[in-house]
Amino acid sequence: MIKAAVLGATGYAGIELVRLLSSHPEVSLEILGSHSFCGQNISDVYRNFRHILDLECTEVDMDAVAKCDVAFTALPHGASKEVIPGLCERGVKVIDLSGDFRYDDPEVYKKWYGAEHSAPELLKKSVYGLCELHRDKIKNASLIGNPGCYTTCSILGAAPLMKSGLGSTSNIIVDAKSGVTGAGRGLGLPYHFCECTENSKAYKVATHRHTSEIEQELSKLAGEELMISFTPHLIPQKRGILATIYINLNKPCTTQELAELYADFYKDEFFVRVLAAGELPETKHVAGSNFVDIGVVADERLQRAVVVSALDNIVKGAAGQAVQNMNLMFGLPEGTGLTFPGFYL
Amino acid sequence: MIKAAVLGATGYAGIELVRLLSSHPEVSLEILGSHSFCGQNISDVYRNFRHILDLECTEVDMDAVAKCDVAFTALPHGASKEVIPGLCERGVKVIDLSGDFRYDDPEVYKKWYGAEHSAPELLKKSVYGLCELHRDKIKNASLIGNPGCYTTCSILGAAPLMKSGLGSTSNIIVDAKSGVTGAGRGLGLPYHFCECTENSKAYKVATHRHTSEIEQELSKLAGEELMISFTPHLIPQKRGILATIYINLNKPCTTQELAELYADFYKDEFFVRVLAAGELPETKHVAGSNFVDIGVVADERLQRAVVVSALDNIVKGAAGQAVQNMNLMFGLPEGTGLTFPGFYL
Amino acid sequence: MIKAAVLGATGYAGIELVRLLSSHPEVSLEILGSHSFCGQNISDVYRNFRHILDLECTEVDMDAVAKCDVAFTALPHGASKEVIPGLCERGVKVIDLSGDFRYDDPEVYKKWYGAEHSAPELLKKSVYGLCELHRDKIKNASLIGNPGCYTTCSILGAAPLMKSGLGSTSNIIVDAKSGVTGAGRGLGLPYHFCECTENSKAYKVATHRHTSEIEQELSKLAGEELMISFTPHLIPQKRGILATIYINLNKPCTTQELAELYADFYKDEFFVRVLAAGELPETKHVAGSNFVDIGVVADERLQRAVVVSALDNIVKGAAGQAVQNMNLMFGLPEGTGLTFPGFYL
Amino acid sequence: MIKAAVLGATGYAGIELVRLLSSHPEVSLEILGSHSFCGQNISDVYRNFRHILDLECTEVDMDAVAKCDVAFTALPHGASKEVIPGLCERGVKVIDLSGDFRYDDPEVYKKWYGAEHSAPELLKKSVYGLCELHRDKIKNASLIGNPGCYTTCSILGAAPLMKSGLGSTSNIIVDAKSGVTGAGRGLGLPYHFCECTENSKAYKVATHRHTSEIEQELSKLAGEELMISFTPHLIPQKRGILATIYINLNKPCTTQELAELYADFYKDEFFVRVLAAGELPETKHVAGSNFVDIGVVADERLQRAVVVSALDNIVKGAAGQAVQNMNLMFGLPEGTGLTFPGFYL
Repeated sequence: MIKAAVLGATGYAGIELVRLLSSHPEVSLEILGSHSFCGQNISDVYRNFRHILDLECTEVDMDAVAKCDVAFTALPHGASKEVIPGLCERGVKVIDLSGDFRYDDPEVYKKWYGAEHSAPELLKKSVYGLCELHRDKIKNASLIGNPGCYTTCSILGAAPLMKSGLGSTSNIIVDAKSGVTGAGRGLGLPYHFCECTENSKAYKVATHRHTSEIEQELSKLAGEELMISFTPHLIPQKRGILATIYINLNKPCTTQELAELYADFYKDEFFVRVLAAGELPETKHVAGSNFVDIGVVADERLQRAVVVSALDNIVKGAAGQAVQNMNLMFGLPEGTGLTFPGFYL
Repeated sequence: MIKAAVLGATGYAGIELVRLLSSHPEVSLEILGSHSFCGQNISDVYRNFRHILDLECTEVDMDAVAKCDVAFTALPHGASKEVIPGLCERGVKVIDLSGDFRYDDPEVYKKWYGAEHSAPELLKKSVYGLCELHRDKIKNASLIGNPGCYTTCSILGAAPLMKSGLGSTSNIIVDAKSGVTGAGRGLGLPYHFCECTENSKAYKVATHRHTSEIEQELSKLAGEELMISFTPHLIPQKRGILATIYINLNKPCTTQELAELYADFYKDEFFVRVLAAGELPETKHVAGSNFVDIGVVADERLQRAVVVSALDNIVKGAAGQAVQNMNLMFGLPEGTGLTFPGFYL
Repeated sequence: MIKAAVLGATGYAGIELVRLLSSHPEVSLEILGSHSFCGQNISDVYRNFRHILDLECTEVDMDAVAKCDVAFTALPHGASKEVIPGLCERGVKVIDLSGDFRYDDPEVYKKWYGAEHSAPELLKKSVYGLCELHRDKIKNASLIGNPGCYTTCSILGAAPLMKSGLGSTSNIIVDAKSGVTGAGRGLGLPYHFCECTENSKAYKVATHRHTSEIEQELSKLAGEELMISFTPHLIPQKRGILATIYINLNKPCTTQELAELYADFYKDEFFVRVLAAGELPETKHVAGSNFVDIGVVADERLQRAVVVSALDNIVKGAAGQAVQNMNLMFGLPEGTGLTFPGFYL
Repeated sequence: MIKAAVLGATGYAGIELVRLLSSHPEVSLEILGSHSFCGQNISDVYRNFRHILDLECTEVDMDAVAKCDVAFTALPHGASKEVIPGLCERGVKVIDLSGDFRYDDPEVYKKWYGAEHSAPELLKKSVYGLCELHRDKIKNASLIGNPGCYTTCSILGAAPLMKSGLGSTSNIIVDAKSGVTGAGRGLGLPYHFCECTENSKAYKVATHRHTSEIEQELSKLAGEELMISFTPHLIPQKRGILATIYINLNKPCTTQELAELYADFYKDEFFVRVLAAGELPETKHVAGSNFVDIGVVADERLQRAVVVSALDNIVKGAAGQAVQNMNLMFGLPEGTGLTFPGFYL
């Protein structure tokens, strides 16, 4: 059994990790770190775990975590950098859900996060944990920068067009809509039920940090530096990201041809479901699952592809992908503990 | 492996059965009966099943179903009576989710359903599938009347007070609130999103059929015939029933004493979680799980207990309980395939 | 024009007052008091008011408020007692939305609020502002204790049975469901969108303060001291209270007879809409309006009435009723500025 | 008083017209046409109108409608063309909410609606009822093609950039999110509460008819033929459209400069609220009102504007705009009956 610690276990990404790991056949959950709920049983903080998981939340104790095989860090931005270097030194594999270890270049980090990276040496060794694109590196990694939720949805949606060269690298637009779990469990007026239900809005237009992750990965796929417009939106649902991606085509193309390109690109990927021409994804089809659904339409009038991709932001966009990374790192079948359907209802 | 058929697989109770059975380690799903979606793959009707379950929906073929070990019938009221007798004759164990086989007395059925029971002989052999109360009979049954969703929540909430004699049998009030999946997938103006969201209402006041099921079971527990007020409400959420139950107490009692009575009554029940004095259940704690959460308060001013119970209407209130019944009937550990936490989010 | 101040203008009851008063043909909004948003324009705090209302939020300045004809106090519990006596002395009519001036007896206040009343002399002069029951007193009042949201819904629902003597004063149960605006705009984990949507729960079982208001008013109607069970619930919608009220009948009675009793009792009331036998209220029918809808069913098996009443908690349950009170106090037609339909959608 | 008929009064656009007109100081509602609810009182179909409006729904009687001054036609596509020519002949002013009279060129209609226009002569005389752009023509029109809901939001959002020449006419993307009232009151599985809540999706990608309206109007503003990508999405709320519009800029530009351009363009428009640099619209700020809120951001990295516009699809996107058109046609102040804030909550 893989001994696992979840640090930041009582946030939304953290608790979803707990949910997935508590059912994972090869994992033993050893440590649930939580500053806010330190001393409380996890099943008192999230009562859905009563009769299922009986484990106390603790402050992070490095010696205890060091006895684990893997630590998932779902800590507030900044907090992860205090514990991760120590864990790495002591041989614990780390899957970090913050933005700290997602970059190839510390300059990009600095530009978008507004601060020098605190562990540039470690950053060099870390691997970007988008399993479908970096599987081989992940298998040998000891530190994973687990991708952002918007990011996974956007990159997987655009990858076939970038990699194939069929998509233009100019004028790429990613218009993404996210459920409210994406904003976390912290309190704030915009997340009060009465302010949030029956409401939609865009936010951080032209400035959201995930832009840089998407650009980094799509640039590598395209083989050239590219920039994108990325606009996040908050919509009144709990789970789910829907990304609508606009990419000009370098030559005329039909919807059927695009669908075939996508199906071929992802033909060996269990967690990416390419829809048939004429089908479009919906967030309810992926909610609660580790799947990404992708549909594509060619707008022949404009020689432009419109790609729509959907995933559950706290599963494939966070906790599920983290488990998928763990499976790869520990030599397990990639889907172990993740091959359930979403709940639809 | 238990070979299973789900008849009526594309309704909301049916598809939740499919979801649970597709992950059940001892079950092989053989047949998905669906009149409306006959000929379509289940993963086209409910796309969350893509890459998970690849099975075509069929019209009911009795010869094919007869090769199964168990059939779950989640058919529209009336349709089940046409197939169940034939299946029973051919030795298939049947777990029926309709109201047809939930009664001890065909006269009660007639009174609340407005028609003679079509198979009174079979009704005699059937067992009311509320596992926590009728476990021993269920183990030997070949036909189960799987309880209604409101019913399970109400009966389990009131049972300790009825069985102990502490609760009065007069003036019992059950005020129940249900999510919209309880109304099924059929179209109707009251279930249109715009008519349903941001709206609450009571319906079928004093006339809902589940009243009779609750009265039947509570009367047996109390050892005398009793009648209750039962008021169902529709509230704007998908999953969940919350029942608030008012029972006068035959002697003064504190909340702590009531909590102990309940904890003792359910001490061996995995799927019933009795909350500590001061705690109250919420539907998000049980959504997606087979648990029933029960909290109890003594209103000492009025010498009255207020019991609040919560469950997921399509899991413990339908599909989950059906699987629990199957486990009992086939000698499996009762929780097989059901020991997951709810999703909370 | 009536010069009006709203103190506590940026809470949910306060801003609904602002919305109603800004369209009221006989009112000039002079002062918007807000501690939290002091110095900001109301149309920056609630942007729906842009191009409609251009007024700065201020700290409470007693001299300025004293120049108004009426002050609506929608302040946090406790804060109102610091300003109301001063305003009353200076001749400003006060309509207080807190619980402070709703009681005939300071002992009742003390029992439910856990503190001595700070202005018992003023309490004696105040009038309970449930317009349909105390219209004549309100007309001459200078200080109104505006009823609580649950309270209005419950009292108006039970009044005809209490006043007529047809309803028993024992075993009265009020099971009430409220939208989340009832909890106000303050932050708290239970009101985070992700904790609140798709969730229902009971709270403050047997201890909610509104119980005492309902008991006070129903006792007066019945002509004897009575006690009730009152259970508040939080359901996932913004606006609306639905109260389901169970009252034993002192003699057999049909639904039709009850409907006639209610129709007769409220025959002169514009804002109370008694439904025909067979109809039941829904919160969407009253949302955004000052109406209370009431439906009634006789459960002849049990000789019990089930009354269902619905209103919008921040209109008839708070701001709308406050305006109705103001209209009465200033000799305006009672419905002035309030005779719009709800929005339904 | 203007005598008005609403034909198709019981659909969602129709009933919102009824709501607005019933409070309009210069209008007398004479006729509510409804095929589905013929013979029923409107206050039985929409109970929020009880005590407010007492009028029976009728089948369309041309002689009766001909006595009115204005007819609003909110009929199913195709039905309007049977009644509108007759009404025009008889001198009734018509404001049509269907797509039939929104086009300058019958060929465009044919291309997007798949059929020859049935009244091309009438089409020539009709005026596109986007008040902010065609005010003068509307004043003298007798037949208005009232704009689509997506259309108003998109055109007003892009107009300043098109008219000024600052925006490029290539690579315009409109990504629009709509509440479910936009789909109307008709039943359909996608609009079932349980299928719709907690779900988002794109639909009719590259083929939605409103594309052609937007192209027609933006082309006129830009002075050249242009084409756009338009993607509609369904999100889980009742009211509201949020359009995110991407337009490349013909020269470098700051957010502040764009905000000034917009503020200047709309400086005389009451119903268009241009937000300050740094502010972005939210649908709750416009819900229930006739306002359009527009925020704009310059993405200087990409020399691209991101415009976000929000309106209530059944008010400014349908019924409110129709009333605004009526006010213009009858020489009333443009905002008569429309100068209320939205409800926010």
